[in-house]
Amino acid sequence: MIKDTVFAELTSVLEGRVTRSKSDLEVHGRSETWFADTPPDAVAYPQTTAEVSALVKLCHAHDIPVIGWGAGTSLEGQTMAIHGGLVVDFSKMNRVLRVNDADMDAIVQPGVSREQLNTDLRATGLMFPVDPGANASIGGMAMTRASGTTAVRYGTMRDNVIGLEVVLADGTIMHTGSRARKSSAGYDLTALFVGSEGTLGLVTELTLRLHGQPEAINAAVCAFDDMDSAVNAVMMTIQMGIPMARIEFLDTKSVEAVNAYAGVDFPLKPHLFVEFNGSETSVADQVSSFGDIVQDFGASGFDWASKLEDRNALWTMRHNAFYACLALKKGCISVVTDICVPISKLAEAVQETADDIAASSIEGPILGHVGDGNFHAILLVEPDNDAELAEAKRLAHRMAERALKLGGTVTGEHGIGLGKKGFMEQEHGAPAWAAMGAIKQALDPKNIMNPGKLVP
Amino acid sequence: MIKDTVFAELTSVLEGRVTRSKSDLEVHGRSETWFADTPPDAVAYPQTTAEVSALVKLCHAHDIPVIGWGAGTSLEGQTMAIHGGLVVDFSKMNRVLRVNDADMDAIVQPGVSREQLNTDLRATGLMFPVDPGANASIGGMAMTRASGTTAVRYGTMRDNVIGLEVVLADGTIMHTGSRARKSSAGYDLTALFVGSEGTLGLVTELTLRLHGQPEAINAAVCAFDDMDSAVNAVMMTIQMGIPMARIEFLDTKSVEAVNAYAGVDFPLKPHLFVEFNGSETSVADQVSSFGDIVQDFGASGFDWASKLEDRNALWTMRHNAFYACLALKKGCISVVTDICVPISKLAEAVQETADDIAASSIEGPILGHVGDGNFHAILLVEPDNDAELAEAKRLAHRMAERALKLGGTVTGEHGIGLGKKGFMEQEHGAPAWAAMGAIKQALDPKNIMNPGKLVP
Ligand SMILES: Cc1cc2nc3c(=O)[nH]c(=O)nc-3n(C[C@H](O)[C@H](O)[C@H](O)COP(=O)(O)OP(=O)(O)OC[C@H]3O[C@@H](n4cnc5c(N)ncnc54)[C@H](O)[C@@H]3O)c2cc1C
Ligand SMILES: Cc1cc2nc3c(=O)[nH]c(=O)nc-3n(C[C@H](O)[C@H](O)[C@H](O)COP(=O)(O)OP(=O)(O)OC[C@H]3O[C@@H](n4cnc5c(N)ncnc54)[C@H](O)[C@@H]3O)c2cc1C
Repeated sequence: MIKDTVFAELTSVLEGRVTRSKSDLEVHGRSETWFADTPPDAVAYPQTTAEVSALVKLCHAHDIPVIGWGAGTSLEGQTMAIHGGLVVDFSKMNRVLRVNDADMDAIVQPGVSREQLNTDLRATGLMFPVDPGANASIGGMAMTRASGTTAVRYGTMRDNVIGLEVVLADGTIMHTGSRARKSSAGYDLTALFVGSEGTLGLVTELTLRLHGQPEAINAAVCAFDDMDSAVNAVMMTIQMGIPMARIEFLDTKSVEAVNAYAGVDFPLKPHLFVEFNGSETSVADQVSSFGDIVQDFGASGFDWASKLEDRNALWTMRHNAFYACLALKKGCISVVTDICVPISKLAEAVQETADDIAASSIEGPILGHVGDGNFHAILLVEPDNDAELAEAKRLAHRMAERALKLGGTVTGEHGIGLGKKGFMEQEHGAPAWAAMGAIKQALDPKNIMNPGKLVP
Repeated sequence: MIKDTVFAELTSVLEGRVTRSKSDLEVHGRSETWFADTPPDAVAYPQTTAEVSALVKLCHAHDIPVIGWGAGTSLEGQTMAIHGGLVVDFSKMNRVLRVNDADMDAIVQPGVSREQLNTDLRATGLMFPVDPGANASIGGMAMTRASGTTAVRYGTMRDNVIGLEVVLADGTIMHTGSRARKSSAGYDLTALFVGSEGTLGLVTELTLRLHGQPEAINAAVCAFDDMDSAVNAVMMTIQMGIPMARIEFLDTKSVEAVNAYAGVDFPLKPHLFVEFNGSETSVADQVSSFGDIVQDFGASGFDWASKLEDRNALWTMRHNAFYACLALKKGCISVVTDICVPISKLAEAVQETADDIAASSIEGPILGHVGDGNFHAILLVEPDNDAELAEAKRLAHRMAERALKLGGTVTGEHGIGLGKKGFMEQEHGAPAWAAMGAIKQALDPKNIMNPGKLVP
């Protein structure tokens, strides 16, 4: 609970931009998946780093939990105010501060959305490729170490954040990284904070690596007779070193969902959606090598989308696939899974998961960024149906254990939050789990930064 | 000092493979550059992780400093036993434990050298590209976050180490990372340890990302009329997004050194050494785009090396350039600098550095991995000539300040050790410098892991 006197102090620091209105608390207590609502005690809308620092200093003095909020699209309960406290919503810190064309980097505030950033960049010939399905904030994406369809080529947030401005737990403003392309100057604090889910501090500015918009782009959709052929085609493509820009898998159920949601008419078979970037000749080269591979695996319905509109339509469908799956079962909620395995284990992991779901009482379309070995089952559950929720959790649990057994991770991109915390010790072992706790303790001894998430 | 009783314990743990022989202590007290010799009290040669853990437990109990040793080629005094203690030499832990062709990763012991690893990999069609000039150990390379000629394409050790086994300060064995290509499971301990210079623990195993040997390779050497044209050609090449595999700069003095050392006859002008990797068509494509650029900058003596022997000769020359420079001045020692700036500032940084050296009383060839914005001046100093050493340090200091002024870093790849510690607070600011100290304190409260280096 935040005392009235403290609330008054918080409000005065932000000139009124702190609220306890019911609707604000509700919105900031909600999650995109099955977690119960947990409204915070108050929500703040800072506009500057100095304001964030002042807020955190007050919270530090009064032992108030501080939870960052970007777009609230994270899927493991990362933003939930389980111990109450103050949600710091970054939507008013949404400016692109500087684009350095020549160095292909940009400095942005955390509330900038990935779509907004790319719209701003359009004229520069540059782009920021990391693209989770939702239109997430860059700050939130850094905090969950997000990735998306293009990680197979351009990397995740780990690879594309080169510096940060952070407000630490006591309100101190810290800078990490530099604008140099590489450095050996001490501990990699940038990498430590990327993926920390707001448990070590609030991010108030990010320096991002940008990439040139490719000279040529081509995309394609192809269908396979069975899941195994599709996944094996992916494994072969990656192993051949074809520099795919995107290579996405959708099982038959996902295709059915996309057809219904987007009003399209793909054959009801497992599909790959792919994209190639490069110079004209290199794209032609990739297209031909990829064509040879998928032919060997019996692909059909090979449909090229070299026009921009067609490609945009294609990737919009892919980005909306989560909502398309939800729409399969009216009013349902979802337990979203997110495992990532070494590429050689991909076929095994996908097949065992599909068998497991087929043998269960619920539905769960499977799709994912298979070029990284990463895929999701979107387990569909009636709200308030405890039996279905329990079944979904059991399947999710078995998927996570499968990932670990195969040398992978329980989360390729969605993060830990509350949902996956129970797997941390199993995935990392007790010493690494303890080391994470020691680091948290060192940087946030009062445990006010997003308490209860990610770390012991 | 290590007491005789403790020495006896250490020896018994390693069945005799701990020594205080004068020659062993001397070898392990030496540095490749200007730092004074600082022999440790003893040197251990473990063969297994369990032995390393047992050694560290004893050192922890008796407050004995522990200093890792790979190949001893680091350039900032990183391995110096400034507080005495035990050097742990990993030369007997030099096995490639596993190569996973399908997943393009490998698990190796820290004492494996980069050349040994690539020899082992030759038949697999894979390679580990990170290549500092010296034949360093993989463990040492991870600990300094090393890079080399290929970082512009394949990244540094930050990008190519995906997991570690570490013996922590109390002897606990910890694992970080997984074999998945990406993960959002908690703090990135792998990235935290890469670049930590042995101050957080000893690395006993590494999981590395491998890359396919390119289908086609071409290389070239070209000369420019002046430094500015060469550097501007690099900036343009990077900004055009040509995926160079290597792009190295040598100033006229470095070329003179290489000519003399390798018995070759390059024109006495600033040069670029470049390499292109890819499929046949993509290499041809890159070669032609690059050719256009350098022509615009007046390049001459454009000499192609599409044959393997010629390329090997070329890169051997480049890798030996440090020793070639040393040979310019008989018996000299060197102060090696290592700044890295945003690419747009490269010409300015190189030119100001060249002017500064030209105006000084000593010689300092300039060369570097310019595709990353990283370059070195090898400042040549007569041994025991205090005036020259002071002059070299003054120039090095000015270079470091120049890097910071231009938004860069005082070390692109060599690390901090003792030599650059004085710049840490200036580069990172007091809060980040304090955060590094807090992390060190949390993971090594007795300060026994390579004490006095890197952190406050
Ligand atoms: C339809 C859909 C598709 C998705 N697809 C993908 C996908 O393909 N890949 C993927 O990686 N994810 C995906 N996600 C998950 C989600 O989009 C990502 O986790 C995203 O990174 C969250 O960003 P956000 O701005 O919504 O962050 P939020 O949910 O607001 O916050 C995420 C975490 O970061 C913290 N935080 C936010 N801002 C800050 C800040 N400035 N400082 C400190 N801490 C902060 C929060 O406290 C929380 O712990 C998807 C989600 C949906 C709904
Ligand atoms: C001719 C020459 C050219 C060079 N060119 C380059 C270059 O292009 N790029 C570049 O990055 N560097 C370069 N260097 C510097 C050097 O090669 C690198 O710093 C290299 O990474 C050091 O590796 P090493 O095995 O010699 O490590 P060492 O010097 O033995 O150790 C380096 C650091 O790591 C610690 N350490 C070593 N092994 C372990 C372990 N297993 N566990 C924990 N800590 C450990 C040591 O205590 C020390 O702090 C060059 C050096 C020379 C002499």
